[in-house]
Amino acid sequence: MKMKQNNKVNEVEVPTEGYKGIRKKILIGSDDGSKNIIMRYFTIAPGGHSPKHRHNSEHLVKIEAGKGVVVNKDGKRIEVREGLSIFVEPNEMHQFQNPFEENFEFICIIPNIDKA
Amino acid sequence: MKMKQNNKVNEVEVPTEGYKGIRKKILIGSDDGSKNIIMRYFTIAPGGHSPKHRHNSEHLVKIEAGKGVVVNKDGKRIEVREGLSIFVEPNEMHQFQNPFEENFEFICIIPNIDKA
Repeated sequence: MKMKQNNKVNEVEVPTEGYKGIRKKILIGSDDGSKNIIMRYFTIAPGGHSPKHRHNSEHLVKIEAGKGVVVNKDGKRIEVREGLSIFVEPNEMHQFQNPFEENFEFICIIPNIDKA
Repeated sequence: MKMKQNNKVNEVEVPTEGYKGIRKKILIGSDDGSKNIIMRYFTIAPGGHSPKHRHNSEHLVKIEAGKGVVVNKDGKRIEVREGLSIFVEPNEMHQFQNPFEENFEFICIIPNIDKA
């Protein structure tokens, strides 16, 4: 068993091209012995966004604070906020944006096979 | 892509022997198309507890509200509260208890292979 204070977990800016203003923490992952699943915590600053992209890994998302916009595969912009869970299918095109004034924070859980 | 209001997700009392005062919601699971991972939300009422048990599935836990007690494999009682993440290894003995006055709430993520 491992326990962590979330606010003491190392946070890094996502350096990948197409990502802007997104910080990431690994709350539970390989370093904790979790072989199948990774739980990440993302904070998107106002004006930040991911690229419109897709990948093999599904996303299980639960919004923790603030609000944001999810762009779905058809390009539709959907406003989302705390209290919502979102499932993004494997290889489904999607984008996260924060056009608002406060941080947009969510957990995003993926299988431990494809960290894209 | 599927979206859900967490507060509208059906909640059920865990009926299994040894569980007391524990309600469960499936925030994202098989019914949403999630083949590899299940995200559940548990609420343990004051005085409630799981059995001391173990199973093939690891647990990725993030405490959402309140506080509780986790009993580890050595029988040690550890007080835990909001802001903490906990990884329970596959087949590791563990128990969740709520000896306090308020609800103890957490998400608990498991692989979609063994729902024990």
